[in-house]
Order: sequence, then structure tokens, then C-alpha cells
Amino acid sequence: MLIKKIQLWEDNEQVNLFTYIIDNSKEFQTDKKKPAVIICPGGGYLGTSDREAEPIAMRFAAQGYHTFVLRYNTYFTEWVSDFNNPPKGNEKSEYPGPLFDLAKAMMIVKENAEEWFVDSDKISICGFSAGAHLAASMGVHWQDDLLKEKFGVDSETFKPNTIILGYPLLDYEAMKEKLEASPDKMLKGFFETSNKAVFGKPYPTDEELAKLSPVNYVTTNTPPTFIWHTADDGMVYVENSLNFATQLTKNKVPYELHIFESGPHGLSLCDETTAREESHINPHCSVWFDLAISWLKKY
Amino acid sequence: MLIKKIQLWEDNEQVNLFTYIIDNSKEFQTDKKKPAVIICPGGGYLGTSDREAEPIAMRFAAQGYHTFVLRYNTYFTEWVSDFNNPPKGNEKSEYPGPLFDLAKAMMIVKENAEEWFVDSDKISICGFSAGAHLAASMGVHWQDDLLKEKFGVDSETFKPNTIILGYPLLDYEAMKEKLEASPDKMLKGFFETSNKAVFGKPYPTDEELAKLSPVNYVTTNTPPTFIWHTADDGMVYVENSLNFATQLTKNKVPYELHIFESGPHGLSLCDETTAREESHINPHCSVWFDLAISWLKKY
Repeated sequence: MLIKKIQLWEDNEQVNLFTYIIDNSKEFQTDKKKPAVIICPGGGYLGTSDREAEPIAMRFAAQGYHTFVLRYNTYFTEWVSDFNNPPKGNEKSEYPGPLFDLAKAMMIVKENAEEWFVDSDKISICGFSAGAHLAASMGVHWQDDLLKEKFGVDSETFKPNTIILGYPLLDYEAMKEKLEASPDKMLKGFFETSNKAVFGKPYPTDEELAKLSPVNYVTTNTPPTFIWHTADDGMVYVENSLNFATQLTKNKVPYELHIFESGPHGLSLCDETTAREESHINPHCSVWFDLAISWLKKY
Repeated sequence: MLIKKIQLWEDNEQVNLFTYIIDNSKEFQTDKKKPAVIICPGGGYLGTSDREAEPIAMRFAAQGYHTFVLRYNTYFTEWVSDFNNPPKGNEKSEYPGPLFDLAKAMMIVKENAEEWFVDSDKISICGFSAGAHLAASMGVHWQDDLLKEKFGVDSETFKPNTIILGYPLLDYEAMKEKLEASPDKMLKGFFETSNKAVFGKPYPTDEELAKLSPVNYVTTNTPPTFIWHTADDGMVYVENSLNFATQLTKNKVPYELHIFESGPHGLSLCDETTAREESHINPHCSVWFDLAISWLKKY
């Protein structure tokens, strides 16, 4: 296994791509190109969670995928243990910053595809929560001039073969509506900070919210999509997934949607490999990973 | 993930322990000690197969185990593609050479347990075919004076918490009986070379065969054991597992035995992650890994 930390931008130590590249054996499947998955951990664009990083990479690696964990630009550049006394915010977390990070990661994987034995036609992006917002943003914006012009390469470079979204944030307008009706001050405070990260301000306009909502950009160019969510997710509401699926349906994009009846936000693998607390262990929902692999193998 | 190649003996480049150590996160389960698995790939003591090495490590890693692949002393020091023109044999593959390699690996994992966050009481050995012979040999010989005296440490150092055996060679006498009755000259030739590796001669005496058969050394000290095999394995006969299970029963050692009706020798993970040929894909048998994990979690 080749473990490498690749810094994506010379002037930014925060943004790194961590590789988990499976050895090429002289003995079996020699020189065979393998599919790859780029993993975008969540964390409200305030950080990238370890719970949705290496453990996810290991699951995909165990199924024969080269995996890459992207630590993209987030508001805090270190893990924040005390939110009452947070470090200074990083303005590079503002959009399209993280989308550029992911685009750069796609380029690097493709540039090294031969050396690493990556099948360039089978590069998927798997994100969770805010990381799923990032993954979906690439899913709907890969063909945009913004990326093509920034990097000066063909749009196809950025096209994910599929996207896999765990409890994704996809519709900021639906979020706003439900958050306004919520009595939860902690939650509101969290999203104010998260908005500072993404929009550069705690209270973006409706237009700004719409602009960064992937749900509004689904087209027939959107890649096949796998989504899972819990119906009672109290942080990133299930409407995000439902509304996105409605758009996928409308555009005839192949997709799979699994909404489990109950479970908190941030379940990750739903078992002890990623649990920080008891509520993160949820055997019923843990089937999502096998469903995702079984679905992914078709593409 | 910490990937390291640790050479076990100064004067022998062939024998290495490859580490796959899961990152310690500041964010969840910080400093929590994890269980570990030392993997012994098979290959008739002529080599160690990649098909039973990193892909197995990835499966265990995906379940939260630190994993270690042991490339122990084998007769050939490189992968042999042409058996009609084999390289010179390595006499260090003769017993107890490989057992010393595994003992040294156990010591290294325990010596570094604190740094790597390994739970020293939960170190299992998982072997396949000849590698399962090695794993089982440690299972039945860990308390022997041979190891204690060679390394000058307490016998408990070498005690595996459990052993997991895939299509294991455990009973050389049963092998001899069936091989003599077999018309398969290729197979006979293979075991003659394998015997040169293990016994230093192609035709060991019955006494020598008995001495290196783990089945003859099962006691109440043998750790809990998980075994899987296919009933029609045409190379390492199923009697190896049946006879070993009989001894485990007699000694009241907790064990689990899964004999699948049909499948060739060397199935490894039974799916495309380890397949060299079509016959290595066997969805029915592939359940062995989940069964092994579910069993292993009890210990």
C-alpha cells in the first residue's frame, strides 16, 4: 500500500490528498487498473472529520478500490475542541475554494493514473454531510467554465463517474426554512459559523443560498448518484436528499436513495469502527455501505 | 495509516513484517487500543502469496484491526513463475525457521504495542494453507521451551489470543495417506518440493511428518480457533480441518468450523479482490470472512 500525503497547493498546508494505493502484485491481476474513490469527510466546512476519513478509505480498499482522502479548505485549520474559544477562520474555505481543491484532487489522480494503476473512467467521489455537499457540487458543476478556465484542462477531467452521498447538505433554502422554525439555538449558531466558512457571512441572502445549493443544478450531465440519509436527521434535514432525488428523477439520472427511519446525523459507518459515542452504533443503518458497493460495481 | 516494512533478522532480507497501523485520531476513540491480526499468507512454504496478504489486511483494517503481514522464510526467496527452472532453495524455510519468524513478529508487535495503540491481549494470527500451518503451529507450540529459550522471554509473549485458519495444512500423516492414493503427479511433485522446504527432504519419515503436524499437539492451552475449508479441496484435504477440530473438541477448546461443500484450494477472499482466475470467485464461500469477524469480536 502506498501512503502519501500530497499537498495540493504550494501556499496552503491545510489542503492535502492522502493516498491509500493498493499494491500492484506480480502474482495476480498484474498491472490491472482498479477503480478509485475520493473521500470528502464532513464537518460543516469547519473541519474534516477523522470519523469519515481513513475508516471509509479502509472499507473501500477492502473491496479493491484505490482510495484518497481529501482534506479540503475548511474554516478552522485544526481540530477545534473548544468552540467557545475558536481559532481564527480561514477565508479559503469560502466557495468555490473547496470545489477547486476537489478539482485539483481529480486532476492529480488522473495525472498519476498510469503509475498508480487507477482506472480513470472509474473515479467516484464519496462525501458525508458538508463533504457530500462538496461531492455533489462537483457532480453538478464539473462541466462549468469556472473549473475549465481555472485549470485550463478539459471539463471531462473533473467528471466523477459516480457520486456517493451520506446525509448530504444539498439544499440551503430548505435548510433555512427548517432552521428558522427550529428552537435549537446551538444548531442555529453552528450554521451561522458554517455559513461564515462557505459564504463568508453568517446570513447569506436567498440568492446566495440558492447559488450554492447543488439541488438547483442537477442536469442530465449529473453522474449516477447513491444517497443515504436518516429520516429524523436533526441537523441536515432529510429534505436535502428528497429534493435532490426529485431533481435526479426529473433529469432521468440513475440513482439509488436509502432513507432509514431513524438515526442521528453523522453516523459514518454506523459501527464501532467510527463511533465517538453510543448513538453512532446503528446496525440497521450500517447496511448502507454494502448497498453502496453493490450499486457501485455496476458503474 | 502507518505502513512500515520491518526486517525481522539482520542477516535475512526475505523475512519482513509489513505494518498497516490505523491512525490514532484526536477526534474519536483517542488513544484507544485496538486489536491486531498478524497475517500469514500461504504458498506451500515455497513463497508467500500476495493473494493472501494485503487484501486480507485491508479487510481486517476495515473492521478496525491493526494488521501485519508476515513474509516468513520460504524455500524460494522470490515469486517463481517458472517451476521447471526454479531458483536455489533457502534452507531457512526448514522448521522451526518460520515458527521463529512468527515468534519474532509477535514480539515486535508487543514491544511496540504502546506506540501503535495495540491491545496486547487481542493479537490474533490468521493464516492460509501453509500459512495456516504456521499459525496453528504457534497456536499449539507457543508454550514450548523451544521458543522461550530461543528468545529469552516469557512464553505468554507468543500466545495468540485466537487463530484463524483458512484451508489449513494441519496433519501431514493424513496428507501422506491421501497423496499416496492420488494419481496426480503434479500434486505429488509440489509436495515433494514443499517437503524440501519444511523438512529439508522430499520424503520425510512418518515420525518427522508427525512432529510437524499441529494436530498432534492440541491441548487445553490451544487458543480459540476459527477454521474454514471446502469439502472437496483437492490439494490440502479437508481431513486436516476435521482431525484438528476433533482434537479441539477433545480438549474443550472453543472453536468454529465452516466446511463449505465445494470450492478449490486457495480461495482467499473468494471474490474479485483476490481472484487470479475465475474459479477463485465463489460468493457462497465468501461469507467466511464475516463469520470470522463476528466470531472474533467475542474474544
